This record gives sequence, structure tokens and C-alpha cells, in this order.
Amino acid sequence: MRLRHKPWAKEKIANYPQYVIQNPEQYNGNWKELFENNNPVHIEVGTGKGRFVTEMAKANPDINYIGIELQESVIVAALDRLIEAELPNVKLLNTNGEDLQKFFGKADVDRIYLNFSDPWPKNRHEKRRLTHESFLRIYEEILKNNGEIHFKTDNRGLFEYSLVSFSEYGLGLKYVSLDLHKSDFEGNIMTEYEEKFSAKGHPIYRCEVIYS
Amino acid sequence: MRLRHKPWAKEKIANYPQYVIQNPEQYNGNWKELFENNNPVHIEVGTGKGRFVTEMAKANPDINYIGIELQESVIVAALDRLIEAELPNVKLLNTNGEDLQKFFGKADVDRIYLNFSDPWPKNRHEKRRLTHESFLRIYEEILKNNGEIHFKTDNRGLFEYSLVSFSEYGLGLKYVSLDLHKSDFEGNIMTEYEEKFSAKGHPIYRCEVIYS
Repeated sequence: MRLRHKPWAKEKIANYPQYVIQNPEQYNGNWKELFENNNPVHIEVGTGKGRFVTEMAKANPDINYIGIELQESVIVAALDRLIEAELPNVKLLNTNGEDLQKFFGKADVDRIYLNFSDPWPKNRHEKRRLTHESFLRIYEEILKNNGEIHFKTDNRGLFEYSLVSFSEYGLGLKYVSLDLHKSDFEGNIMTEYEEKFSAKGHPIYRCEVIYS
Repeated sequence: MRLRHKPWAKEKIANYPQYVIQNPEQYNGNWKELFENNNPVHIEVGTGKGRFVTEMAKANPDINYIGIELQESVIVAALDRLIEAELPNVKLLNTNGEDLQKFFGKADVDRIYLNFSDPWPKNRHEKRRLTHESFLRIYEEILKNNGEIHFKTDNRGLFEYSLVSFSEYGLGLKYVSLDLHKSDFEGNIMTEYEEKFSAKGHPIYRCEVIYS
């Protein structure tokens, strides 16, 4: 994604601590206190402009969503959506996927969404892919037993890599679609990127894997 | 594949017992005797007109190939290729994939190829798919430890189904390509069907799984 510098982003984020959580370390092991309920917690790593997480939250009021996005200039767009929609079951974290264990304890998370993650196509960048073994280990630390990853991408190389990476890690493949928009999968919420990309006629790949 | 009835096929097959093995039960546990060497044995279930198995045999003289095809009117085309090429490392079996255990003992087989198997798209025909659990169990009975299945197809639904079936059976995914002809996979031998189909621009899906 091309990033436009937005010098006011940091200040805006700081002005809405009820949506973009400050010092999320304090909720490690205790997100139910913040959400004031015991509902399942689904997180999206790399939440971008936030359409997916906010639309999912509208459709599933009994699930708590946390969108994680490092780029300030991007997460402000997700923040705008929350300000408008006033959803009680979505929070944002302006941080890095590598730091998940600082914010989530064992079993804090029921499901992880990875949507159109950066493919990092060069071999020497393999470790940066969000489906690399090192990330799968982080996810295992924060997911409940039988927790799941739901992953979609338009990038063929990343999907091929990820299927093998999941298998080598011992995760079970529950579902796979090699052309999501032509499949019988119901309830798909398109990300901003997905809508733009799939309009060109390219297939979207999607799978669900389970830690069991 | 549309089948043309060939009344002379049965007689022709019977006339070449050195290529189409009669009473293959007799080699169960002892295929090295027939091939007169200890080379690995790779079988193709559903070998069709035989281009794949004969071209692979030419390229890999140190591997023994066995092509299995039920349809007499199709296997005669594979037989014609063998008569012409006079390859010592290919044999054909005019039989059914369900009967593999009659002909192969534990560890007789090093690798199984499934190429463009019938997709049996209707749910009620699921058990007929060559990647159904019941077939994966048969393959396990005849494969060596760390034996592999190499599977390719143009059928998206069958490939999606098979990836999940392999995972649920506990097989490890070693390699996957979602567009074989645009991938960096080297040494692909196209089947007759593959050449025809891929010329239309559709992707070919391919994977390798391991019993370990």
C-alpha cells in the first residue's frame, strides 16, 4: 500500500484512546475487562483501513474484534470508521505483529485473521511473512486450544508458501478455497484491497487452519 | 474422457503380457523380480493413454514405473507407446485403483502419481475420489515409509477437497503450486489431457504430500 504521510495522524490517534488502545500491555490476560464481557476475541493482524474488522463487528455483535496496524497514516482511516460507527466491540492497536505476546496472554485470542498480508516475495525476506514459522509460534502462544487462523490473499506465491508452512508446523487445514469469489463461501467481507484487486478478475485464495 | 469402444483391445492387451502384466497378484511383494533390479517403484493410478508414465520412464531410467488403468480402450494407447519405445522400466496393469492392495505389499511402492483424476464433483460420489480417506488408507498400505503422493489436476474443487483430505489424514504437504505452468517447477511432463486443457489458459494445480 502506498503511504501518504499524515503528520496529524499521531495526535488524532492519541485523542481517541477509547478506540486506539494506549498501553495495551495492561490488558494482557484480561481483555474481557476492557470489553466488559466474556465474548470471544478475534484479532486481525494488519488491519489496514479497517473495513474488514468494522464490518465483521457489525455482523457479529457477540464477538470482540481487535485490529492491529503499525502504520499510523493507515490506522487513522480505521479510526474514522469506528468514530462513525460507534461500535463497542472493536478496538485498535497501533503496533507490530511481532509484539503480540506483549499484549495477549495464552488463550486470550480465539481466532486470528490475516488478510492480504505483505507477501515479501524475496527469499531473504521469508521471515517477515506473517505465516512464517516464527509467527505461527507467536500465534500459538496467544490462541486458545483449537484456535484458528483465517487467511486470505490474492498473492499466489504467499498462499502456496503458507499452505506448506502451516502443514510443516502441524496445523490442520479445515477449509480451502482457490477462488473465493466463485466459491459457495457465505458472509465474506471484502477488505478495501480485496475489492479493488478482485475487480481485475484475479482469484482470491482463502483457508482456515486450526491449532489442535 | 469420452470412450470409444474398441472390441479388439482385449485381445491386443493379451498379446503383450510383457507390457500389460497378467495376474499381477503374483508380484505382490516382489516387483523387483519382474523388473530384475532394486530400483524404486513409482505407480500412476489412472494412467490413461500413457504419455506421462512413458515420458517419465525415458527421463528416469533408474526408476520403475507401473501405470494402472481400468479402461481397456484407453490402456491400449499406452500399450502402443510401450511397443514403440521398448522401455524396460514401464509396466501396465489393466485394473482398478481400489484393488491396489492385491498387487502391492507393504513398502512395494515409493511414490504414487495421481494425474487429472476424475473429480466426481457430486457430494454423494465423494468416496470415489482418489484422494478420499479410503484411498489414502490403501496408499498407506502399499507405500514405503516417507512415501509420497504427487498429485496434479485442473479441477479446482477436487484440489481444494484433496488438500483438506490430505491434512485431515495427517499427511505432510511438501510442495504446492496453484499455477504449475507459471511456476518454477522443472521437469513437468504433461499428460495428454493437461496439454489440451492448459492451452485454454486454465491453471494446473499440483502438490506433493508425504506419509511420515
